[in-house]
Amino acid sequence: MEGKPIKIATIGGGSSYTPELMEGLIKRGLPIKEIWLVDIEEGKEKQEIVGRLAQRMWDASPYQVDVHLTLDRREALAGADFVTTQFRVGLLDARVKDERIPLSYGMVGQETNGAGGIFKAFRTIPVILDIVKDMKELCPDAWLINFTNPSGMLTESVLRYGEWEKIIGLCNLSVGVMINEPKLVGKSMEELNFRFAGLNHFQWHKIYDKKGTDVTRQIAERLYDGKDTGTPANIFDVEFFREQIAQMGMIPCGYHRYYYRQDEMLAHMLEEYRDPKTGTRAQQVKKTEEELFALYQDPMLHEKPEQLSRRGGANYSDVACETIASIYEDRNSPIVVSTRNNGALPDLPPDCVVEVSALVGAAGAVPFAFGPLPPAERGWLQLMKNMELCVCEAAVTGDYGLALQAFLMNPLIPSGDRAKRVLDELLIAHKKHLPQFAEKIALLEKEGIEIKDDLVRNMTRQGL
Amino acid sequence: MEGKPIKIATIGGGSSYTPELMEGLIKRGLPIKEIWLVDIEEGKEKQEIVGRLAQRMWDASPYQVDVHLTLDRREALAGADFVTTQFRVGLLDARVKDERIPLSYGMVGQETNGAGGIFKAFRTIPVILDIVKDMKELCPDAWLINFTNPSGMLTESVLRYGEWEKIIGLCNLSVGVMINEPKLVGKSMEELNFRFAGLNHFQWHKIYDKKGTDVTRQIAERLYDGKDTGTPANIFDVEFFREQIAQMGMIPCGYHRYYYRQDEMLAHMLEEYRDPKTGTRAQQVKKTEEELFALYQDPMLHEKPEQLSRRGGANYSDVACETIASIYEDRNSPIVVSTRNNGALPDLPPDCVVEVSALVGAAGAVPFAFGPLPPAERGWLQLMKNMELCVCEAAVTGDYGLALQAFLMNPLIPSGDRAKRVLDELLIAHKKHLPQFAEKIALLEKEGIEIKDDLVRNMTRQGL
Amino acid sequence: MEGKPIKIATIGGGSSYTPELMEGLIKRGLPIKEIWLVDIEEGKEKQEIVGRLAQRMWDASPYQVDVHLTLDRREALAGADFVTTQFRVGLLDARVKDERIPLSYGMVGQETNGAGGIFKAFRTIPVILDIVKDMKELCPDAWLINFTNPSGMLTESVLRYGEWEKIIGLCNLSVGVMINEPKLVGKSMEELNFRFAGLNHFQWHKIYDKKGTDVTRQIAERLYDGKDTGTPANIFDVEFFREQIAQMGMIPCGYHRYYYRQDEMLAHMLEEYRDPKTGTRAQQVKKTEEELFALYQDPMLHEKPEQLSRRGGANYSDVACETIASIYEDRNSPIVVSTRNNGALPDLPPDCVVEVSALVGAAGAVPFAFGPLPPAERGWLQLMKNMELCVCEAAVTGDYGLALQAFLMNPLIPSGDRAKRVLDELLIAHKKHLPQFAEKIALLEKEGIEIKDDLVRNMTRQGL
Amino acid sequence: MEGKPIKIATIGGGSSYTPELMEGLIKRGLPIKEIWLVDIEEGKEKQEIVGRLAQRMWDASPYQVDVHLTLDRREALAGADFVTTQFRVGLLDARVKDERIPLSYGMVGQETNGAGGIFKAFRTIPVILDIVKDMKELCPDAWLINFTNPSGMLTESVLRYGEWEKIIGLCNLSVGVMINEPKLVGKSMEELNFRFAGLNHFQWHKIYDKKGTDVTRQIAERLYDGKDTGTPANIFDVEFFREQIAQMGMIPCGYHRYYYRQDEMLAHMLEEYRDPKTGTRAQQVKKTEEELFALYQDPMLHEKPEQLSRRGGANYSDVACETIASIYEDRNSPIVVSTRNNGALPDLPPDCVVEVSALVGAAGAVPFAFGPLPPAERGWLQLMKNMELCVCEAAVTGDYGLALQAFLMNPLIPSGDRAKRVLDELLIAHKKHLPQFAEKIALLEKEGIEIKDDLVRNMTRQGL
Repeated sequence: MEGKPIKIATIGGGSSYTPELMEGLIKRGLPIKEIWLVDIEEGKEKQEIVGRLAQRMWDASPYQVDVHLTLDRREALAGADFVTTQFRVGLLDARVKDERIPLSYGMVGQETNGAGGIFKAFRTIPVILDIVKDMKELCPDAWLINFTNPSGMLTESVLRYGEWEKIIGLCNLSVGVMINEPKLVGKSMEELNFRFAGLNHFQWHKIYDKKGTDVTRQIAERLYDGKDTGTPANIFDVEFFREQIAQMGMIPCGYHRYYYRQDEMLAHMLEEYRDPKTGTRAQQVKKTEEELFALYQDPMLHEKPEQLSRRGGANYSDVACETIASIYEDRNSPIVVSTRNNGALPDLPPDCVVEVSALVGAAGAVPFAFGPLPPAERGWLQLMKNMELCVCEAAVTGDYGLALQAFLMNPLIPSGDRAKRVLDELLIAHKKHLPQFAEKIALLEKEGIEIKDDLVRNMTRQGL
Repeated sequence: MEGKPIKIATIGGGSSYTPELMEGLIKRGLPIKEIWLVDIEEGKEKQEIVGRLAQRMWDASPYQVDVHLTLDRREALAGADFVTTQFRVGLLDARVKDERIPLSYGMVGQETNGAGGIFKAFRTIPVILDIVKDMKELCPDAWLINFTNPSGMLTESVLRYGEWEKIIGLCNLSVGVMINEPKLVGKSMEELNFRFAGLNHFQWHKIYDKKGTDVTRQIAERLYDGKDTGTPANIFDVEFFREQIAQMGMIPCGYHRYYYRQDEMLAHMLEEYRDPKTGTRAQQVKKTEEELFALYQDPMLHEKPEQLSRRGGANYSDVACETIASIYEDRNSPIVVSTRNNGALPDLPPDCVVEVSALVGAAGAVPFAFGPLPPAERGWLQLMKNMELCVCEAAVTGDYGLALQAFLMNPLIPSGDRAKRVLDELLIAHKKHLPQFAEKIALLEKEGIEIKDDLVRNMTRQGL
Repeated sequence: MEGKPIKIATIGGGSSYTPELMEGLIKRGLPIKEIWLVDIEEGKEKQEIVGRLAQRMWDASPYQVDVHLTLDRREALAGADFVTTQFRVGLLDARVKDERIPLSYGMVGQETNGAGGIFKAFRTIPVILDIVKDMKELCPDAWLINFTNPSGMLTESVLRYGEWEKIIGLCNLSVGVMINEPKLVGKSMEELNFRFAGLNHFQWHKIYDKKGTDVTRQIAERLYDGKDTGTPANIFDVEFFREQIAQMGMIPCGYHRYYYRQDEMLAHMLEEYRDPKTGTRAQQVKKTEEELFALYQDPMLHEKPEQLSRRGGANYSDVACETIASIYEDRNSPIVVSTRNNGALPDLPPDCVVEVSALVGAAGAVPFAFGPLPPAERGWLQLMKNMELCVCEAAVTGDYGLALQAFLMNPLIPSGDRAKRVLDELLIAHKKHLPQFAEKIALLEKEGIEIKDDLVRNMTRQGL
Repeated sequence: MEGKPIKIATIGGGSSYTPELMEGLIKRGLPIKEIWLVDIEEGKEKQEIVGRLAQRMWDASPYQVDVHLTLDRREALAGADFVTTQFRVGLLDARVKDERIPLSYGMVGQETNGAGGIFKAFRTIPVILDIVKDMKELCPDAWLINFTNPSGMLTESVLRYGEWEKIIGLCNLSVGVMINEPKLVGKSMEELNFRFAGLNHFQWHKIYDKKGTDVTRQIAERLYDGKDTGTPANIFDVEFFREQIAQMGMIPCGYHRYYYRQDEMLAHMLEEYRDPKTGTRAQQVKKTEEELFALYQDPMLHEKPEQLSRRGGANYSDVACETIASIYEDRNSPIVVSTRNNGALPDLPPDCVVEVSALVGAAGAVPFAFGPLPPAERGWLQLMKNMELCVCEAAVTGDYGLALQAFLMNPLIPSGDRAKRVLDELLIAHKKHLPQFAEKIALLEKEGIEIKDDLVRNMTRQGL
């Protein structure tokens, strides 16, 4: 598509990440003409603050780009070349619930893993399918660059249920890894080759040096030296077991801590949960966001403020801009993406979505064939992919039994009464955003199920 | 092989189950000539008690069969037609450790599932591979009928590492189900067709009536009416979630309670663990065994005493005798067995071992093709099979990292420090029976790791 | 469904095979109430002859069964319990074309293999899909017992495109084998276990004796002794290569001669083709049929005449009756059927149709897991299944390019201009029965393509 | 491995291709120190001519490289960094036999496809496995860059039986395609992305433009305009069927003509075979070779003569040099290679060798995941891969039955007596180079089997 001036529509344009996205686009010098930041009524104020900053950033750049603000998604989509998504259904309040309800029953409360991640999927999948429906009508040639979480399950749903092929799911995890791990061995990113494979927030990687030597174990060993490992700010940094990493010969992603060191991760989360001064991650992020928006309002600011990097999503938009540029200019750059497997991971069906190193060009992502995984990783991978498939289907159908199955098989949710209880409370708490489960929620409300966590109960009562 | 007089060698012949095995063989009227009960020095007393009872049982039958007692396995194997295995490496004391160490850290302590099951595999796999080595030399045409637990992993190891094809792994679970579930709908076993599929102690089944109608959900519904469900005596009987069962359209086996209702199962086990009056299952079984052996000593007894049925393994030997008869007479009877998959469960590789309904005849077991499982069950199945493969390989190689991987991925072992600690304590406690891990155990002992559970610590110090 | 009186509808009821079907049903003593023989206008005369004989056969039996004759398929289907199919779209005239056109270009002309088989599929698949459409409306609980050829591709199409699960595809080949091969080693059918696997008219089998020994190679060796091998009357009996059979360790079906000994088979067929006294198989069968119908007209005849057995389809209806009885009485009998793979042949996808040994009961066919094939047979199998999938799709869509692909990959059709020419002539010759290809046929006619074979050209001109 | 001075050992160094290889290496400016050209006694003369030319080429270049000539393979391998193979077991005389014997029975006689290709594999696989054995001892870190044919089967054998991972199989076909097809649409190679997938001499490709549009069908259409299509000089250029290519949506490789237009290809080959003035390809190549070597002897020549390009293998060494450079400098260049599948073609097992677009770097080739093929191509692919597996195994074991199976399933060999006869004659003709089949050949000779083709019979008698 090289040459043609670009229209970008960003769903969730009022997000605090937008300045990073703008910075990334400015850096790449693509022939962008218009950027449309779409948001919903509730996000209008933020949208305007961010929108003005975005325009100032472009005005300070060598390029002439109009930043449009709209609450009308269809207006933004019409004729778009790239649609990027960074929206959060239910805003940070929903994240508070995703985290606190599980934690109130002593289980991991996290926005993309465990019970919280499942509910983020339940809320978000219907919305992205709706966006895709609009895209088929308004911009049938556009690429959907998704960085809304859970990015893998959203990509899976768009391909499987939305029947929309032009989607690439992104995540910033791999970028952090590729920035930090070379430093551990005194190398630059260019001096190493990374091969990622797995699922979004559940991948592993191998590293080769310029001589073709597999240096994964060597770098893994340095991870224990206490240096920065590229684990995102939102993940507590407990060490992996050395013997495990040595055995697997791959390096797990930061989120694997939840699966490999659940006890310790949970203990840390519960500590924060119980401490009114910190609160859960969502509560911390709320503060960061407030500070960011205060900064954004400064009419003299016309660049991305440094503080933004402290959020878990740093580099997110960098990978998005790289993807847009690679597609637009047919660069065939290696990027880690969520895309259709096509055999890259032969332990999973070819038609499901995986997160893998791929070459991205004008025709989309072509994954590298990674080959079969060793048994331990294969077992985890197959469990998690099937759990994801249950979640995606339940998100579309509102099948409560299937939602319960996903809960019971999810390794971060201890099975039994607690699991069912947390499922039920989350359904009630997120009622507003879960029309597909309306019937079941009505039954639960009739049963008189009460939310245990005080804060969430009150939020829900107040209609938040 | 019909016609030829049969020699049976039973490894672990001193087991309290032997009278049931004898009863089953007597019932079937096969042309048996000799039965050899093999045991080890530590089991000699029991072997003699049981051996005398066995001989009395045959003497009271219309058949003339000599029951031989020996401590020399090779003597028993020489020229055998069937080798049955019901031995327990480390006797019930080992089971006490398998149960109490995990429970002392608040996790499921059970002899075939979770940490305990993994260690039972670690102790037993090298021994059965040794038996197979002898069989290749002494009775290369014999069938190995294994009902030592964990039966699936043993069968897997014998096929994969022992390279011995003539093995069938058995379990009594399905028999209990087929006896009890028909009653729930007022039918006889003959009026229903059962199709089992999964792994040992981790299978599901479907039921069809004589009109070909799938009556699984209908029978599943009756499971909630409080009637006896065929769950073995050793499994605490918490209900499955109705919504889950309705969704899957299959009925899980009793052991699935550990996976689907872990919280409740664990609570019950911890209660027994903490109550000195009950103790864990192994401790209860010890008492039952003592009572049984007291009964067995009665020189007037020449039949299987009723009390034996109260043990978890009831019907075990029934299915063993049925299998022997089906092979011997080429009966092509449908039996639920652990055998090579060969495609019956297309979600797993053809070469691994699964537990499925199969026709058993002179050429062994031919599984019925069950077809693909729905995503939730597929995920569980693939996780568990890969966990088993890690366990089998670690049992053969003594690879500590792989043992740790198996622990971390096992759904009954919460991941983190506790998991590693339980692994380490179990290694130390079972040192005597784990030569393959000797080096690592020496290191752990040097580190001064102490076993937390008082009883097990003392047993281990006393060399039990 | 046991107990309920049975209504059977037979599509193509005027077939000369009907007396055999009647005999089989009478032998089994099922509680049949009505039999409806459906045929088309062109077959009315035969239908009446056969129908009267059928009624006489039942009248001479201990059962009171009404044989209804109708040209209205829907009347016959209404409320049917079993629908059997033995129709031939285009009658024997179509078969003449299927055989002669390929032979006129020096390639195998056979009604279920090669170009002829592909065209039989093209003509028949739309009709059986139409029947299924009626069944969904008129007898949604009925079983479709298909013995119209090509039986495998019809079953595949009904499952894949008709979305009708209750179908079993049958073939008489395996019955002939099981009758004849035991004799080669002086045994009865009951003394051997047969395991069939492959595709319809393209399967292999293994044989085990009552001791579980694989006696396949031993029996294969006897096939060269000149005794009758169970090869159907319609297959010329050239020997397989000994070295090949010894290597594969399985016995191929009679039709494999076309694939393993193409040169010799073709030479024989060309000889008959060129000899006006014999003519191709269809022409021979035409004569046999005339003789049969002459016999059938004898009002004193009230049993199946011996002469019927000389046709290639002997035992066809026997296996059909056995299947009906097994379903009706939930017998769980081992029968060789075309049914969904479900993993039985792990070298093919679980959802495609294979021909395998299966247990047939009230819930349908449950295939035995056969396991992976050795590379040579795997290659053949995968080629042929994919060829079948192309044929089925082309039969439904009328895609000429796909039809050409099927031709070019079919091992019995030499690729190149001849292949395309034969495809084009067959399209023109069968125009009447190929509405899905109407557009392409019109183009071919416009191009002025002439049929080379005189007989077929004349038949086509005369509208036969 | 960047930086280290390179030692290259070329097995079959006396080949007429060597000057091209030298040219390619010179062009790339790699820090090469020594090049060892290995050949056998029979090739000594050519080796010396070519070796002197090679040295002159380097002397005329800016680099100081010593070209060593040796008949001692082990001397050359010792410490090598890259081993390239371009040897021909039995020289062109063997190719004459591979071509003429099949043609004498009216079937395709070609050196890498059909009966000839199978025998080239039989002769060559034991030799390359021997080379690998030496490499394990003498240069265990070297890369084996194979361009000896049949390149795919050799790579398969080295990975499967040689257990040597560092091999890349090459072929010049894809290069020709990428040079010629862009011209058809007035583009440069850089303006299109090619994705190849299949097996060596049996692959297909898709083409995308810089906008990501699949332009395969558009380019395929231009193939019929009579322009040069990149088909190698050794393949007769009959057109593919338009309807077939349109249906598949991929472009087949030149060798596919043998499979899709067998009649026409065969007719052309038979014409040449019967014409004493042309003779088969091998005979033509012999002449070209003589001319080339005459040129090579010119002491003034210090560059690759233009005439070399007329051979079928043009660009062969270009892709070899590119591969060497990509490995040495870790370039991660896209190259079409034979390498382990690893899921790239999910229709084949992950562990077998396929020919696919891959990124080649210091760690070897990482294939792009191509995804499932449509049914027609899937069927062909699976047939051919399994045929290859039979050939590789027979080459290693000397199993005659398996060789016969490979013959009977090969689409270029009509099955039946002719097939077996051609197999037997080829065994006798190549006796000298087939020690693994010695026993069978002795039996055949005892049977008195005579070679039909006069030329080959005489060659064989003369010990050629």
